[in-house]
Amino acid sequence: MNTLEVIKKRYSYRGSYKSTPVPREDLKKILEAGLAAPSGCNKQTTSLIGLDDPQLVKSVSNIVKKNGFGGDGAPAGICVLTQKIPAWEDNYYYIQDYSAAIENMLLAITALGYASCWIEGQVTCSAETQNEIAKLLNIPADYIVVGFLPVGVPESEGKRPEYKKFEQRAWFNGFGL
Amino acid sequence: MNTLEVIKKRYSYRGSYKSTPVPREDLKKILEAGLAAPSGCNKQTTSLIGLDDPQLVKSVSNIVKKNGFGGDGAPAGICVLTQKIPAWEDNYYYIQDYSAAIENMLLAITALGYASCWIEGQVTCSAETQNEIAKLLNIPADYIVVGFLPVGVPESEGKRPEYKKFEQRAWFNGFGL
Repeated sequence: MNTLEVIKKRYSYRGSYKSTPVPREDLKKILEAGLAAPSGCNKQTTSLIGLDDPQLVKSVSNIVKKNGFGGDGAPAGICVLTQKIPAWEDNYYYIQDYSAAIENMLLAITALGYASCWIEGQVTCSAETQNEIAKLLNIPADYIVVGFLPVGVPESEGKRPEYKKFEQRAWFNGFGL
Repeated sequence: MNTLEVIKKRYSYRGSYKSTPVPREDLKKILEAGLAAPSGCNKQTTSLIGLDDPQLVKSVSNIVKKNGFGGDGAPAGICVLTQKIPAWEDNYYYIQDYSAAIENMLLAITALGYASCWIEGQVTCSAETQNEIAKLLNIPADYIVVGFLPVGVPESEGKRPEYKKFEQRAWFNGFGL
């Protein structure tokens, strides 16, 4: 699959995962894709923790799951961390930074034949959730846990949700044209 | 190039562009890549205006340039718009949404042999800049202009800035490990 195909294939998978382990080599490629994302003024505010210890993945998943969906049963996962560092003066782009990093990782995950889901609200909606994950993974206080991506071979074939038509969201040389 | 290669090749290009036009077909593929990005609760808060009218691209570029860099000389471009719609209750993910869309487009641009640069701060730092672009492109008041991506064949070969080493930003099964 080329890049445009991978971009169109990526979707948020909320089904169960096969127990097939994710080789460390693949997990590293996914993390590298995340780190290759751009960041405002190149501040590189995003950091990542790859998880392939089955017990640890399960623990993080269970913490997140308390708020809804936690990528239950995935054999691997990624915790996304950010540092609230200004890019210039009082301008912050850390949300943009980690979002680009997450999208890169979701594409890498898709390209390598795995599935995932961008889980953010169920992490950041609760300071207690963030603190529990931080404690479990020894994350220092100046790093904030903002997301969790389960990673694994999907048990079933999920599908992309309905998207609005192109002409409802994109135009040429002027709004609505 | 496969997806992982494209992800590693993408960089912020700030050089000049060849005058070679970007075919509408390619511009549409890039916009489609942007629209294929995930969004919080599938709210699809991002909209896009592709620009391939040379005069219009120049006008937008000149407006943005007043605050620094405007992708001067690019034969095409994309204006990124957002709507501040909550995903659930009072939780907003429109920044995440348009950031994922922009990253998808930057990868599509790279895959198709063009160069670009994520220009956001020089658009959003000034309400006047946002309003000037909105007026020029007939953008309604409930859409906010948050970014501009120049698109074209690069005149010279740029390069990625220095990135921190993998082990400074990513670890396995615990922070710093």
